Amino acid sequence: MSPRFYAPAANATGDRIVLPVDEAEHLTRVLRLTTGKPIRAFNGRGAEFDALVSAIDRDGVHVQIGDRVAAAPEPRVAVTLAQAVLKGDKMDDVVRDAVMIGVAAIQPIVTERTEVSMATLARSRRRERWERIAISSAKQCGRAIVPPILEPTLFPLNDAAGVTVPSPVLVLVEPGASSGMALSELDLSVPQQATLVVGPEGGWTPEEVQAMTKVGPLVMLGGRTLRADAMALVALAALFTRWREF
Amino acid sequence: MSPRFYAPAANATGDRIVLPVDEAEHLTRVLRLTTGKPIRAFNGRGAEFDALVSAIDRDGVHVQIGDRVAAAPEPRVAVTLAQAVLKGDKMDDVVRDAVMIGVAAIQPIVTERTEVSMATLARSRRRERWERIAISSAKQCGRAIVPPILEPTLFPLNDAAGVTVPSPVLVLVEPGASSGMALSELDLSVPQQATLVVGPEGGWTPEEVQAMTKVGPLVMLGGRTLRADAMALVALAALFTRWREF
Repeated sequence: MSPRFYAPAANATGDRIVLPVDEAEHLTRVLRLTTGKPIRAFNGRGAEFDALVSAIDRDGVHVQIGDRVAAAPEPRVAVTLAQAVLKGDKMDDVVRDAVMIGVAAIQPIVTERTEVSMATLARSRRRERWERIAISSAKQCGRAIVPPILEPTLFPLNDAAGVTVPSPVLVLVEPGASSGMALSELDLSVPQQATLVVGPEGGWTPEEVQAMTKVGPLVMLGGRTLRADAMALVALAALFTRWREF
Repeated sequence: MSPRFYAPAANATGDRIVLPVDEAEHLTRVLRLTTGKPIRAFNGRGAEFDALVSAIDRDGVHVQIGDRVAAAPEPRVAVTLAQAVLKGDKMDDVVRDAVMIGVAAIQPIVTERTEVSMATLARSRRRERWERIAISSAKQCGRAIVPPILEPTLFPLNDAAGVTVPSPVLVLVEPGASSGMALSELDLSVPQQATLVVGPEGGWTPEEVQAMTKVGPLVMLGGRTLRADAMALVALAALFTRWREF
């Protein structure tokens, strides 16, 4: 298959568009493609096309959009991952993995024990970084949708903040948590959408757990302690299995 | 909880043992523990104990083994992961993740498209490296069992080589593979043991797929392309969910 590029301006067959700067760099410098080469272009909103590099000039990489083609199918359940921001570049891996397995959106959250503050997140432009990672992961896994990275927010959600997440809301808790139940014990019909909430390295405070019992079921995944940066991928794989996506 | 150490010599309450060199280094140099400190000691074969650092001298770290305690529970299904060796340090991550989620053993395999040769594996002592990673992961995830890293072997298995893997054998194939089926379509009762086979970055050759249809079902996991180093974790999470381990 031809290499895939993110082309948000591509809407229909016949369009002539210019690739975003990052994509143009990838095309010319990494893959060293030239005028006339066939590529795939996806717009991040679900449409993918055969396409042709029609010109490379000072304005960028020009692409002629051809026939619409099938991208990787999207999961039937639109899952929002509400993930506590992890330290260092661990969150990058979570974003990459979550996009790969098929989430619909990622809501970064800051909890009591999250070691990164809202102020640091804003100053360091982490959200823009995660958006680039989401695009990169979508290119690799074959999705034509780039899941949005939502504005980071404090969690548990405060009604006043105006942030809501799709129901049902499932909260991942550690093995042996007193109020958690095994995924297999949940009466879990296949919803149209859902939210999975995953905590930070240090886990939840008792107060957070208490607050979250009102939000949705607290779910445990087996008896071993999962690394914080692997929790989301394991839980998403488990949920997709439960929902017969796999 | 006290920090956990791998102590293969620990068999019963009352034993006085010496920690392996790597563990002694971790105890003295990283955690800077001293004589009299309480620790947990697990023997890698399922037993875990409260213990005490009784002396630190030129012979090493001496430990007094106390009462037996409960470790993280082991999965009901003993899964052998037969994983094609991946490039660079990707295989390290697979070993770490597979131990964390709960495999019973890891069988490194070399397939047609595996980019690391049997000779390189032997020369570079990769197996010893993976054994250290398995110990490290067991320490973190709470297991008292260190899954064995078996001798790497060519795959598909040649009867003459005398290597066998536990049945049923499930083979992970790429989305859209002509002979693969969704996990949800499999009539999958809960076995006592099983083998999951995962290919290398470049996937399987048509000949390998043909050969493996005789071995067991070819399974697909959703429509997105998974990264080679994430396949095992996703597939193990899916299988454990199917088998009500989660």
